Amino acid sequence: MQPKSPSILECPVGRAVETVGEWWSILILRDAFQGATKFDEFSQSLGIAPNILSRRLAHLTESGMFVRRRYHERPPRYEYVLTDKARDFFPVVATLLAWGNKHLAPKGEAILLANRHDRRPFNPVVVDAADMQPITLTNAVIIAGPRASRVMRKRLTSLKAMNPAVAPAGD
Amino acid sequence: MQPKSPSILECPVGRAVETVGEWWSILILRDAFQGATKFDEFSQSLGIAPNILSRRLAHLTESGMFVRRRYHERPPRYEYVLTDKARDFFPVVATLLAWGNKHLAPKGEAILLANRHDRRPFNPVVVDAADMQPITLTNAVIIAGPRASRVMRKRLTSLKAMNPAVAPAGD
Repeated sequence: MQPKSPSILECPVGRAVETVGEWWSILILRDAFQGATKFDEFSQSLGIAPNILSRRLAHLTESGMFVRRRYHERPPRYEYVLTDKARDFFPVVATLLAWGNKHLAPKGEAILLANRHDRRPFNPVVVDAADMQPITLTNAVIIAGPRASRVMRKRLTSLKAMNPAVAPAGD
Repeated sequence: MQPKSPSILECPVGRAVETVGEWWSILILRDAFQGATKFDEFSQSLGIAPNILSRRLAHLTESGMFVRRRYHERPPRYEYVLTDKARDFFPVVATLLAWGNKHLAPKGEAILLANRHDRRPFNPVVVDAADMQPITLTNAVIIAGPRASRVMRKRLTSLKAMNPAVAPAGD
């Protein structure tokens, strides 16, 4: 699967997807965040095969990301409306977009995330709500939560404690 | 492809992946963020088929996320070291983890992201660096950047301006 429409190739999120994985679902959500609700809108924006789009929309609906709502009686037509759960996913896409703009747009950005009110571009950064300090690989660590299983606890103690090796200079 | 190892099923990031897409690459990065560098370490953690893991590691290396470094001469053995570009991807995984914990761990969290120094759990939130206000679907809009093509500009003007419909109450 190689996404090829301009909305994918130009978009920093689309580029991130080309780099990191094959994420039709993220692109569908991205389009939904931009107002798309109908099959044809997703289809046109993504250039995705109808059977794959159907499958992904069904999966996202089953997963509680969309509610299917009938907007036309005869013939029956449905639109896909974002749930709160899905709306909460927006920050993930925002950070993905910021990363894509930083690392996958060497000639400049085609798309920016901006403040709706004054159109000033956002500079998304992930911080800890407690003290507003950025969360980075350097200051973060993974720990077991209250529901960690025995297997998970064992796994966490066997990790190299989130202390990955540093790449050679120049890379 | 249905990831099934505990490190996937229990981890909020893994659950997010099960919900939103099939992201071996993200899971490989997640493990790299936790210190994994060797083929066997990824393989054991993920329960991924060797040929798929090889392909994903090669792709991530080609994409500039890993540098391959020889750590044993005879026989030649390589480890995969995160680049700065990949380390910058960490906040994406942090927000994904936070979302997964919020929405995909109804019985409580198995894994938490915490401050390395005092082990206090982080509460990751995506804010604008300019004023530290959260970025949400409500206050954000997508605009054309300096390198937007004609097609992209047209697409952006045709969007419903990032104003998605609201889900019916109760969903």
